[in-house]
Amino acid sequence: MSRRELLDELGDLVGPAHVLTGELAASATTDWTGRWSGACEAVVRPGSTAEVSGVVVACASRGVPVVPQGGNTGLVGGAVPQPGSVVLSTRRLAGIGPVDDATGQVTAGAGATIGAVAAAARAASWRYPVDFAARDSATLGGTIATNAGGHHVLRHGMTRRHVVGVEAVLADGAVVSHLGGLVKDNTGYDLAALLCGSEGTLGVITAARMALAPADGDRAVALVGLADLDHLATVVGHLRRAAPEIEALELMLADGLNAVASHLGAPIPVPGAEVVILVELVARRDASGLLVEALAGLDAIGDTAVATDGPAAASLWRWREAHTEVINAVGPHPPHKFDVSLPLDGMAAFVAEVRADVAHHHPGALVWIFGHAGDGNLHVNVTGPAPDDQSIDELVLTLTAAAGGSISAEHGIGRAKRQWLHLSRSPEEIEVFRSLKRALDPGNVLNPGVLLP
Amino acid sequence: MSRRELLDELGDLVGPAHVLTGELAASATTDWTGRWSGACEAVVRPGSTAEVSGVVVACASRGVPVVPQGGNTGLVGGAVPQPGSVVLSTRRLAGIGPVDDATGQVTAGAGATIGAVAAAARAASWRYPVDFAARDSATLGGTIATNAGGHHVLRHGMTRRHVVGVEAVLADGAVVSHLGGLVKDNTGYDLAALLCGSEGTLGVITAARMALAPADGDRAVALVGLADLDHLATVVGHLRRAAPEIEALELMLADGLNAVASHLGAPIPVPGAEVVILVELVARRDASGLLVEALAGLDAIGDTAVATDGPAAASLWRWREAHTEVINAVGPHPPHKFDVSLPLDGMAAFVAEVRADVAHHHPGALVWIFGHAGDGNLHVNVTGPAPDDQSIDELVLTLTAAAGGSISAEHGIGRAKRQWLHLSRSPEEIEVFRSLKRALDPGNVLNPGVLLP
Repeated sequence: MSRRELLDELGDLVGPAHVLTGELAASATTDWTGRWSGACEAVVRPGSTAEVSGVVVACASRGVPVVPQGGNTGLVGGAVPQPGSVVLSTRRLAGIGPVDDATGQVTAGAGATIGAVAAAARAASWRYPVDFAARDSATLGGTIATNAGGHHVLRHGMTRRHVVGVEAVLADGAVVSHLGGLVKDNTGYDLAALLCGSEGTLGVITAARMALAPADGDRAVALVGLADLDHLATVVGHLRRAAPEIEALELMLADGLNAVASHLGAPIPVPGAEVVILVELVARRDASGLLVEALAGLDAIGDTAVATDGPAAASLWRWREAHTEVINAVGPHPPHKFDVSLPLDGMAAFVAEVRADVAHHHPGALVWIFGHAGDGNLHVNVTGPAPDDQSIDELVLTLTAAAGGSISAEHGIGRAKRQWLHLSRSPEEIEVFRSLKRALDPGNVLNPGVLLP
Repeated sequence: MSRRELLDELGDLVGPAHVLTGELAASATTDWTGRWSGACEAVVRPGSTAEVSGVVVACASRGVPVVPQGGNTGLVGGAVPQPGSVVLSTRRLAGIGPVDDATGQVTAGAGATIGAVAAAARAASWRYPVDFAARDSATLGGTIATNAGGHHVLRHGMTRRHVVGVEAVLADGAVVSHLGGLVKDNTGYDLAALLCGSEGTLGVITAARMALAPADGDRAVALVGLADLDHLATVVGHLRRAAPEIEALELMLADGLNAVASHLGAPIPVPGAEVVILVELVARRDASGLLVEALAGLDAIGDTAVATDGPAAASLWRWREAHTEVINAVGPHPPHKFDVSLPLDGMAAFVAEVRADVAHHHPGALVWIFGHAGDGNLHVNVTGPAPDDQSIDELVLTLTAAAGGSISAEHGIGRAKRQWLHLSRSPEEIEVFRSLKRALDPGNVLNPGVLLP
């Protein structure tokens, strides 16, 4: 059957205006970093769950792969199509239902951005606590499919914790829906938990019932200097117990802070500290009192800056957030970016090893490390080597695994890390993954080439 | 191959002292309510993961079903063996590792009781917040396999939220293990989340890495009278937002309280209230202040009792906890017990309907309803009808489903609710369950006859 016939059928299903080809499809074939690009027959934008089912059936019957795509903000090429496939964009499934005030839950379409979900929650005096920089592009469906985390995992957990139920279209077009919002419900296997993190390979999530958090209003942020990384585990343990309201515990190192200081034209916040952590606490009231009390037990270097109003907090966060743009500008190429997690007590050794190995094998390359220290999540950036130099990937990911870490803290495996999955998962586990994939998608229709090696 | 050969091989694997037959196996073949009983070839008690694997392989190769069993405290016959099967008791896998103070995590064997896990957490100044009356019998593995909840779900969620990773033996004897404790780890499908709630049908959990909660020390409990159930959703919504530290929000009704009052020989706590809720709040400090503040917005009936010390709190909890023993004693038969959940705004109508339908079809039968109101979980007890009168099951579970509820808030489907699974799950969902079961246990070795109709 010809490509023309497929496009005609898709047009009949979703309306011709929602079948994009050529130039109009181009933005869907490359990820936002520009590192991963592909091609597709078309981008299809169904407007309902029934249309999603129709698209999947139409493609599956022709052996055409379906690549689900939300905001396309991933880092591992998990939503980048391969030639001959159809991109199924969820962006039109963007409806957000009313917030249930008794349970603090909301049902939203997969294509709603997490920023829109958060706004809806806020308007009802609740809060959606999964948050990160791409909030106005990243979709609810995409963040469920990749089990996104972001800044507040320490207190609020990953996306999976907030998923009460999902609606999804399976590889045969069947629709499974469990959006009733019951928190206690043990009636069979937890399909929502399985689909969460499955990177579009087991089903296309079309909607989800999400649990919100109470909207605590008082926030305080501090920058704290530490002598080194050696006692990070102790620091994190102390802070977590002293104040469970701590939501963010971010890590910066002296070289990154120096680069940011140059960029901002500002003096470095804690001179002499090799390590600076940003600690954010959110409470019903007296956030700064709780934060200062928690910080009192630490062996801090220099002066601790504490911000208690929005602008002051933002200016402290600026030190952390500017890392990405500053490192992206270093050149001569875009950085190699790795989103990994490490056991807290192995972080100091890991950072030293990465620096030493990169210096040894790639003289002149620069290593930039920052991230969410509280949950062991490090962003490792290496600038210098050419983008297609995979030896950097091997070096960083092998050291990560050797330290007992995960080669993917966020974003999943995608296409980028398939060949490295064995570093984090045993042959037995990978065989189970294959069994599950065969069970739910025997024709390998949904996002083939992603996740499984 | 003969039964004798199987028992010999099992004895070789785990030691003859750990292969129980006859009288010694009897307690494993009946559940604690006495409603579900069966038979088995033997009870085998492996002492290591390798021994569990050996037992599963030995049984699977002979087509002998394996019934994993922890504390055998379930209510739906999910761990009760059928003739010809082998009970695999996890009770010897009871080791508990050190608590990691930086992450607040602990690794424990499947056979450790949740009471022992909680004690280990407490000794390290952390807390395992999944708790219920059977704490000193129910095992970690069993509570993961059934995704147990208990008293504190409102704040702390079900068991699944606390599972960071599991080790499990699959139907072919393969061992999958992911106990590294990384909170951010997106490297493939979440097998732990899938095994959680799978009732022993997809794998035998042998150990788990659990996330603990900080050990807040201050506790306050209140009994609050309400006029009726009509505004329960509003009350719950108000309390959840006013004080996220509320951990328990328990429901009692006037008839149950009257029966408990007779039993205790004490005056009913809030005369004139049709509904009494017990509210427990746990905080770092000033729990009673936070609780009183949260309760201030309610339209309460009569006097609100607030307890701020342990003995006073226990005496308020006694009203709620005595329900089970009082109802069990009503007779003439043991009660029909149902653990269901309902949308909060449908609870009043559901309670009225159950009462009316039971009165109509079973004159003289009594309906007792209490439970965890905060998360919609009701314990429905019916006394009067004979234990084998399944029309009671049909009546209660059908009304539950019609109200948008779940036929199993806790305990799972087991053997008791298989024929009713279709009330809570669509044919498409049940077909997916079957696919997953076939994928992971093609020989139907693990707990056959449980969960799937």
